[in-house]
Order: sequence, then structure tokens, then C-alpha cells
Amino acid sequence: MRIALGVEYHGSNFNGWQAQPGQRTVQDSLTQAVSFVANHQIEVHAAGRTDTGVHALNQVVHFDTEAQRSDRGWLLGINTNLPEDISINWVKPVDESFHARFSATQRSYRYLILNRLSRSAVHYQRMWWTHKAIEIEHMQAAADLLTGHHDFSAFRAVECQAKSAMKTVDTITVSRHQDCIAIDVSARSFLHHMVRNLVGVLVPIGEGKKPVQWAAEVLESCDRNQAGITAPAEGLYLTDVQYPQHFQLPGVSGFPVLW
Amino acid sequence: MRIALGVEYHGSNFNGWQAQPGQRTVQDSLTQAVSFVANHQIEVHAAGRTDTGVHALNQVVHFDTEAQRSDRGWLLGINTNLPEDISINWVKPVDESFHARFSATQRSYRYLILNRLSRSAVHYQRMWWTHKAIEIEHMQAAADLLTGHHDFSAFRAVECQAKSAMKTVDTITVSRHQDCIAIDVSARSFLHHMVRNLVGVLVPIGEGKKPVQWAAEVLESCDRNQAGITAPAEGLYLTDVQYPQHFQLPGVSGFPVLW
Repeated sequence: MRIALGVEYHGSNFNGWQAQPGQRTVQDSLTQAVSFVANHQIEVHAAGRTDTGVHALNQVVHFDTEAQRSDRGWLLGINTNLPEDISINWVKPVDESFHARFSATQRSYRYLILNRLSRSAVHYQRMWWTHKAIEIEHMQAAADLLTGHHDFSAFRAVECQAKSAMKTVDTITVSRHQDCIAIDVSARSFLHHMVRNLVGVLVPIGEGKKPVQWAAEVLESCDRNQAGITAPAEGLYLTDVQYPQHFQLPGVSGFPVLW
Repeated sequence: MRIALGVEYHGSNFNGWQAQPGQRTVQDSLTQAVSFVANHQIEVHAAGRTDTGVHALNQVVHFDTEAQRSDRGWLLGINTNLPEDISINWVKPVDESFHARFSATQRSYRYLILNRLSRSAVHYQRMWWTHKAIEIEHMQAAADLLTGHHDFSAFRAVECQAKSAMKTVDTITVSRHQDCIAIDVSARSFLHHMVRNLVGVLVPIGEGKKPVQWAAEVLESCDRNQAGITAPAEGLYLTDVQYPQHFQLPGVSGFPVLW
């Protein structure tokens, strides 16, 4: 039997998703908790391997098991056995044609920036912070130049293992919510560090250090050295993963506004 | 020279506001940081002494100093010397008639409850959590019975040192934001644990375990044993403190929706 889970985590104290010997990772913590509830060793597969410090509101994973539990039994059992910085928000039995990674049709990320003079104690490790004035209209204009099917080599980490840098970015939306700026990016798949590198180009444009057109120049250069910084992991959330409708997966839980 | 500050903190790792030997407190951390920037020992006075684990978005404090610094100099200097779970959001020189505690005309608290089946990893230590269905209309009806000038003995902690339990609650507003419930309470002053004890009565009413009228019965009993639990500190935020207009203090910084 194959079961899909919606997983939320605060990534600051994890060495990313992927299991690594001697490191605290989301995959290891989740594998332990699910195996305990299933009463046999299971293997979890995720929609996306998030990096160190990156958060998730609705990471989707699946695992195979012979154990018989109610959806509620899995949910409560797994949550009880997880550390405080991971939680399961939904459980859904799926047929064997479902694969958390390969069935995904779209991944959505949100990047949060606190834009005010002082850093925030309450939102520590939950948003990036810049005190410089930001014009989100300029960021949106630049974002529009980056949407669509392109060679994203300039936005790709050196360690990236993808065969091709050709990707299709479906949407980039920049919005302001009082002192916070949210950048929503959706695509079928992403290169390594791609969202954080996109943010690293959009922010200097919003601050007026670079013109809107710079985004197109960076893109066309296909050269990582032409781009900006990699925005820090603390502002990045994997917010949702889309699958074909017939799998009938529950959506992301209703957090207020920014999450 | 007297200077007022707007202070934000995430209270989970503090033993409350008030300085205590051998404990990590907000007052001690702030005193150290301000004294360092002032280059002499200062004493900070707060609008309200928050308990262990309680957060603040706009706690107001003042201190006296002979040091000459620009507002921006104080702000950046103090923030640099504070731990990550405290930040200063504004600085305002005030005349000697101002006192953070005694000049305050109203204090506002917000209590946040996550109301869904699973706990939240991202909002860990930032909201209380209950998975039971809650009718906020019932909570609001009960809240209306508690507003106004009353003897709040039933909502007062045993350790409370206030001379009188007579208090005037100006407003209690209950609102839902998707999976979160916010309870906003304003009064000139509060008894010890009063907001958390009010929440401890409103929640069982929202869950249907108690009728709306129970709020009035608890109030009239003037007996702490008749009331409910003390809601946990993790959901409570001191959101704002009001002063007479002529002091011209900046308001709370614009956080999105819930904060």
C-alpha cells in the first residue's frame, strides 16, 4: 500500500531534506517516525529535496507499507513521533502509479523578506531582512522578464546536477503585506538554488541598485557570475506541490496570509 | 535625557521580562545592550512585566541617560548588541513626565490559537494549538459578557499582587483567519495571568464544552477555582501600549495580519 503525506517543517535546524550520515535531516527524522508507526523500516520519497535552512508548508512525500492504519492513526502516530520542527498535515492513501517526485506537475515556493529598519525577533529565521527601501513594481517588472521557458544557467548553483538548465517558470508574483514582501514562484521543476538566485537578482532591482533590464541581461548571459547573491535559505518556503487531479491530494492547510 | 523604545521579543527562551539573578530575562538582556551603547549603566522600565514564554511586538520601555546618540544610532547600536530573540523597532526621546509604566493609558494583547487537526512546525512556540472545532461566535458572545468594569478575581493568578481585582476591560474581539483564531484584549491594566485566564474560559465555550453563560457565572463567582485553565504563554503577545497623544510615540510596526 502506498501512502502520501503533506509535511510541514521549519528548516533552520535541519541539514536539508536528504538523509546524510551524522547530520540531522528532515528525511531521517521522518523515516524514523513513520517506521516506528508502521512497525517496519520504510523509505520516504519527497517531491523536492530542500536545502539546509529551507522551510516547507506542504512538502509531499510517499512511502510503501503493509501496515494497516486509519488515516487519522497515521497522522496522530507520526506527529507524536516527530520533533517539534516537523509536522504532518494530511495523510492520503494513493495507488502505485503515484510518485511524490515524478508525478508532480508543479512546485510552488514563497520567499519572504522583512523590509523595515530593524530586524524582527518574532520572525527570526523565518524571513530574510533588508532595511533598504524596495519598489516591488520594479521587482515585478523584472520578474516578468524571467517568466517562461529559458536557459536558467545564470540562476543555477555550481553543484547543480540537472542535465539541462532549460526550465519553464510559470509565474513569479511579488506582493507587499505591510512590512513584508512575498515572492511566489511556480514551475514544474527548478535548478539547484534557482529560487534563491532569482530573489538575489530581483532584490537589487527593487532597491534601485540595478535597472529592471538587468534581469534580462543576467538571464541571457547564461553565466552564474553575472547574477547576484544567493538569497539566504531562511526566507524560503516550499509552499505547495501540484499533482494530476485524479490523485485527489488535499491542498496546503489554510495558514493566514503569508504562510 | 529620557528615551523611550519599542521592543519586540520572542519570549520562549526568556524567563519573562523582569530581571532575576541567574535567569535569562528580557530586562537583563536589554539593560546590558543599552548600557553598552550608552557607555554607562542604565536602568530600563517597561510598560508591562510579561511572564515566562510571553512574546511582545511593541513592549514600551524607557531609560535615562547622559549619552548623546542619534535615534538611528541608538536603534542600530542596541539591536547589534541584543540577542536574536529581542529587537528594538523604534527610538523616541521623551520629556521627563513620561514613564513607560505609569503614563500608559491602555495595553493590548493578542492571543493566537492554531485550530486544525495537526500541530504546526513553522508556528511552534508561536501559537497555542487545539484540534477541536471552535465556534468563534460563541466565544465572542461570552467575551461580550466579560467586557466592562468588573471584579476579575476569578481570572487572577494566586500570585497576583494587585491591590484590587476591579479592572475595566475595554474590548475583547475574537476573529478567525483561516486556521488561526486571534483574541484581542485591551484594558488600561491587567491582573496577573488575566488574559491567559480569560482565554482559558473562552476556549471551552468555543468548543461547546461550556455554555456562553458560563463566562458570566465564572465572573460573578469571583473564585479562581470556578474558572478554566490558564492558557499557555506561547500564544500570548503584548501587541501595543497606548500613551497620551502629546508624547507622539510611534505605533507598532506593520506586521502582516496576525502580528
